Amino acid sequence: MDKKYVVGVDLGGTKIYTALVDLEGNIVKENTIKTEASKGEISVLNKVLETIDAVIEDVNLNEIKAIGIGSPGPLDVEKGVIVASANLPFENFNLVKPIKDKYGLPTFLDNDANVATLAEFMFGAGRGTSNMIFITASTGIGAGAILNGKIYRGSTSNALEIGHIMLMKDGPRCGCGNTGCAESLGSGTAIMKRAKEALESHVETSLRNYDKVTAREVFVEAEKGDKVSKEILELSLSYLGIVVANTINIFDPEMVVVGGGVINGGKIVFDIIEREVLNRSLKTIRENCKIEKAELEGKAGVLGAAALAILEGK
Amino acid sequence: MDKKYVVGVDLGGTKIYTALVDLEGNIVKENTIKTEASKGEISVLNKVLETIDAVIEDVNLNEIKAIGIGSPGPLDVEKGVIVASANLPFENFNLVKPIKDKYGLPTFLDNDANVATLAEFMFGAGRGTSNMIFITASTGIGAGAILNGKIYRGSTSNALEIGHIMLMKDGPRCGCGNTGCAESLGSGTAIMKRAKEALESHVETSLRNYDKVTAREVFVEAEKGDKVSKEILELSLSYLGIVVANTINIFDPEMVVVGGGVINGGKIVFDIIEREVLNRSLKTIRENCKIEKAELEGKAGVLGAAALAILEGK
Repeated sequence: MDKKYVVGVDLGGTKIYTALVDLEGNIVKENTIKTEASKGEISVLNKVLETIDAVIEDVNLNEIKAIGIGSPGPLDVEKGVIVASANLPFENFNLVKPIKDKYGLPTFLDNDANVATLAEFMFGAGRGTSNMIFITASTGIGAGAILNGKIYRGSTSNALEIGHIMLMKDGPRCGCGNTGCAESLGSGTAIMKRAKEALESHVETSLRNYDKVTAREVFVEAEKGDKVSKEILELSLSYLGIVVANTINIFDPEMVVVGGGVINGGKIVFDIIEREVLNRSLKTIRENCKIEKAELEGKAGVLGAAALAILEGK
Repeated sequence: MDKKYVVGVDLGGTKIYTALVDLEGNIVKENTIKTEASKGEISVLNKVLETIDAVIEDVNLNEIKAIGIGSPGPLDVEKGVIVASANLPFENFNLVKPIKDKYGLPTFLDNDANVATLAEFMFGAGRGTSNMIFITASTGIGAGAILNGKIYRGSTSNALEIGHIMLMKDGPRCGCGNTGCAESLGSGTAIMKRAKEALESHVETSLRNYDKVTAREVFVEAEKGDKVSKEILELSLSYLGIVVANTINIFDPEMVVVGGGVINGGKIVFDIIEREVLNRSLKTIRENCKIEKAELEGKAGVLGAAALAILEGK
């Protein structure tokens, strides 16, 4: 029977989003369920199986090519093992085997940055490219790379940790223990921290009108003209722009796709990124490289898991 | 007839170094000639042909698999064209075609950083790896990458410009026009500039005993205990170490091979690089990655050109 579909599973700490997807990236049937991570690894595994059952109930198993799963890492991609995860109960847990065994289908696992990269490459802004970098800026800064038409994983499946390239010696402390990482300077968390520092000082800012300030409120108040919010964004986004510029100089890609919560902050985000790229990346490389907004956002995980199944299921 | 040899040409601004090389990377016959770049492009082309003639005179053309050429760039590798070069007279000059036409052999061109990377990968410190980054620090900082067993060139053949990743906002001006590039902070030129600044100030330093101070003298005086020289090296080499650490976080390689004039500065160079890598690269990636000294140095260009001929000549 012709293989018409794949299953994509976006496994997150809050929810599991699973879809039956055709080979052109159209979602045929989808199912979302709360992860309830605190109930432990077997419970979460069963929920994954439940969502897969729900999306494949109307089709024949023979019509399904493969199953792809995107998960937070670190993972052992080869073995299909979740090594550890901050928001999931898994520790050295082989997630692929029980799924493969149940359905008798090829099953593949990759980390969430890589599947989002695959999603934009196959179904989103990066269609048609051979060398494409996907950068996501939200709480942290993550990335994935398509090089010569294939996802590049590195030797331990941990490549593209561009959130942890150092951009300021003796800069702010990063979650990884190092100082001055890109993530500590240009992420949504960096914006929020700078807002907090401003509120703890005596400067005048409309951010004081909120009970709780996150990156979102800084974008809102900057848009309304608050000087402090504007300065925070100028500084933080310039570092995000530097990340993009450095990435362009390193990979010489045809396209950088930028996604994640920060890019919903409006025109200012891409204005600053483009300015930094213009000032800081080499002309011959830059002139060949487009910077595009991610297209898939909330569906990047599930479609990327589907893309993984399509590509690896060959 | 069995293909037993390739020809490697290391085309530099000062000299042309050409060798007949067997498929295991042993130099069978070699020839060096002054480039005399000022005499123009046809003169230089003829000298390249002359060196090739000299090294192949004792063998049959049928025994030669291919010719490889390493040249400063920017190049158009696909077309075999030297687009421009600071130290060579070529401008949009097709160097490959006349060589291919004369000998009837497959002929390939690549930039000097890439051929040096290929040399270390095939015949030097990087033998047996799949993902290896070669970083060279001398006047500038250059690099090349072997990813999944192949040289990674990027979309315009200009990838791995890690000398121009920004490491200090509003840092020193770089030759590329940007500020705070790795090259302006951690290269031999950066060491020399800091020495010059020290000499222009009123600090006490044994660097004053020299008529002309380059990176070499700074290494010599630091070794002898000069405090200013030590401080200059500590600062400059820490940035070189940061380049290595950032590269490890980005590529997740099995090995980083470091070459170029700066690495001949003694134990202090690798001590500082290793310290920065320990402090600034992610544990899971770092623990899988070796840092090695380049093995081929002066022969990297000619052996890399030979490696290019072996790999591309298939």
